[in-house]
Amino acid sequence: MSIIVQKFGGTSVGSPSHIKRMASRVMEEKNRGNAVVVVVSAMGDTTDTLAKLASEITSQPKQREMDMLLSTGEQVTIALLAMALQERGAESISFTGGQAGIHTDSVHGNAKIKTIDGEPILRELDAGKIVVVAGFQGITEEGYISTLGRGGSDTTAAALAAQLEAERCDIYTDVDGVYTSDPRYIKKAAKISSLTYDDMLNLAAGGAGVLHPRSVKHAKKYGIPMVVRSSLTKERGTFINHSSQRSDRYPVIGIVFQGERTSITLSGLEGGSKVQSAIRAALETRNIECDFFKNHPESELTLLVQHNDVKESVELLSEGFKFPRFTTQGNLAKVAVIGSNIRTHPVIQGKAAKVLNAEHIEFKLIEDLPGSVTAAVPQHDMHLAAGLLHTAFGLDVPEMRKVVAVQ
Amino acid sequence: MSIIVQKFGGTSVGSPSHIKRMASRVMEEKNRGNAVVVVVSAMGDTTDTLAKLASEITSQPKQREMDMLLSTGEQVTIALLAMALQERGAESISFTGGQAGIHTDSVHGNAKIKTIDGEPILRELDAGKIVVVAGFQGITEEGYISTLGRGGSDTTAAALAAQLEAERCDIYTDVDGVYTSDPRYIKKAAKISSLTYDDMLNLAAGGAGVLHPRSVKHAKKYGIPMVVRSSLTKERGTFINHSSQRSDRYPVIGIVFQGERTSITLSGLEGGSKVQSAIRAALETRNIECDFFKNHPESELTLLVQHNDVKESVELLSEGFKFPRFTTQGNLAKVAVIGSNIRTHPVIQGKAAKVLNAEHIEFKLIEDLPGSVTAAVPQHDMHLAAGLLHTAFGLDVPEMRKVVAVQ
Repeated sequence: MSIIVQKFGGTSVGSPSHIKRMASRVMEEKNRGNAVVVVVSAMGDTTDTLAKLASEITSQPKQREMDMLLSTGEQVTIALLAMALQERGAESISFTGGQAGIHTDSVHGNAKIKTIDGEPILRELDAGKIVVVAGFQGITEEGYISTLGRGGSDTTAAALAAQLEAERCDIYTDVDGVYTSDPRYIKKAAKISSLTYDDMLNLAAGGAGVLHPRSVKHAKKYGIPMVVRSSLTKERGTFINHSSQRSDRYPVIGIVFQGERTSITLSGLEGGSKVQSAIRAALETRNIECDFFKNHPESELTLLVQHNDVKESVELLSEGFKFPRFTTQGNLAKVAVIGSNIRTHPVIQGKAAKVLNAEHIEFKLIEDLPGSVTAAVPQHDMHLAAGLLHTAFGLDVPEMRKVVAVQ
Repeated sequence: MSIIVQKFGGTSVGSPSHIKRMASRVMEEKNRGNAVVVVVSAMGDTTDTLAKLASEITSQPKQREMDMLLSTGEQVTIALLAMALQERGAESISFTGGQAGIHTDSVHGNAKIKTIDGEPILRELDAGKIVVVAGFQGITEEGYISTLGRGGSDTTAAALAAQLEAERCDIYTDVDGVYTSDPRYIKKAAKISSLTYDDMLNLAAGGAGVLHPRSVKHAKKYGIPMVVRSSLTKERGTFINHSSQRSDRYPVIGIVFQGERTSITLSGLEGGSKVQSAIRAALETRNIECDFFKNHPESELTLLVQHNDVKESVELLSEGFKFPRFTTQGNLAKVAVIGSNIRTHPVIQGKAAKVLNAEHIEFKLIEDLPGSVTAAVPQHDMHLAAGLLHTAFGLDVPEMRKVVAVQ
């Protein structure tokens, strides 16, 4: 008996009627003779509604209590999906993250999975049940509820698939696969039929929102094939594995972008650029990701973080490092040209710079990453820059994509 | 340091602004130098909203999944109250029922507390924190979330107070104390200033909704004084203890009533009325409470259960007992004259019958209970019968009750 992990998010968990449709999709997989584990997100705008309640109480909620609050969103969905499956005659049981044996560190609001005890799920699968697991959450050593932060439900699915040695991890979402860029904004973006883990990691690390890097890392480490596909259509989706059917003649596979970035420039920093790795490590203690600008002057360092992380980043930096002053600049975005072994193609960086310069888009290059050439641009130029790069690197589909019929 | 357990329900947890007001009430107690444990219910109509979601999925949800679903209601409140207390500068931590060490049996939807591990709460109290606990829920031996059924949050509060050897258990609710009858329907009902546990148990067993019998039993067993009071006013409330200041000249202390009852008459029952205790025991395995009619014919037995329990009761009866046929009658209600040692006053039953007969209200007496004389009446006569008995037993307040100013 093969184990398939399915993850449903987005509009597929938007309402009771969507949940019933999701149940059909789950039953199809079960009826193929597979053991099925389903990971779900919170319904529709539940998370926002809960966050709004908190904001009416306090502007600075403790993350432990936010996790207690927000984790109810997924808990509602798992109960309803288990009911929908039972209504269709399937044996099913719902598990919170903690009940599913998902143990995390204690970084509330952005926790990392430390270990998974697969026994509770395997026991129920052996009993013939479909196991429905709350995504995005786990339990800390203290027995407290934690949430995994951005992309959390994908990570739950991939980590469970790895732990359970699943045959496949299917990520059902609102789009029908992984695209060369976000098709909501870049109209000529094309669906990619197959990708390697590394290509997907590069895309995800660059900000392709369809999958979080953590989830791909879990899948890669344990060799679990992933499929990104639509919950609304029967389209094939994008297959992610160790090898890809993609031609490697051209190294660029996509253009990704992420807004809501702020740069923090530390002036007169003791140690200068040599402290980069120490800074990165300090921020990582709070699971804050940062990028560094290339080509900064001596004794100055500029890092790029998410808007939401600015306050905490400055606190951490002030505690651990000596610099007389700092400045911040908001309204920035990251735009990244993603590819395989892209550093072995030095021409990419020059070409990207030329394209942006030609349209007078201000940009600063981000330090080298093996899978991308990345620039910080003004937020208002983000989509323009991405579209220009998409065209320049030959990624545009020749004709308009076919409209996919919604079932 | 004394421990005070406070329970808030009803409109006091209706919205974020109500929760902020509740936080003030909690802080008052904390500022008196007490260690405070707060037990809360779900906000406003959350439980109904969640139940409605389930009803859109299935008409027969499994109780385990309903518990998974409904328990999120209290979980939202505890997170928000902990945040509100933190916003006011107090150290506070929220606990689900399971985190608070509340272990129950596995009767999902109507579970009973088996044991409480007080250690997690005591540890946080020792650290100076206000501990906020989700009422109405616990955890089963399997680690599943259970709910305690009706009156569950009061039971949580009383059981915690007992386990923690609290000085007092304050039940904050929408009414300012325990009344001689439900003041929403019986306008001449009077507030009772003090009651013994046994009187309160009799009132609660008869259906006085203000407190569930289970909660009073916990408090009595461990001698924890309870106070029922309003969350909206500073009124003294009703004090419940081993002794009362009430004059014992007259045994009747209140008239209580409960609607939505159905009678089940078993005809040709083998064993006749001798199987009563076996039937009661069979229903109790599913935590279903029943009453038996007095004065039934040989080889016939009529029991009274809640509407909601009829289907399950009939199933359990058919499995365990032999009877050729049964009939049911819905739209019934229980009306009870409650008092201390009321069986030693045989005159009570005669007087009650006379009052009901005089107004041509159909009734059947329920088998003797030590603390009440109870009759089944048609649902539509419930309030009329209660009002008549309230007057007849001298419970009416002489003048209109004072209107209590809402703060």
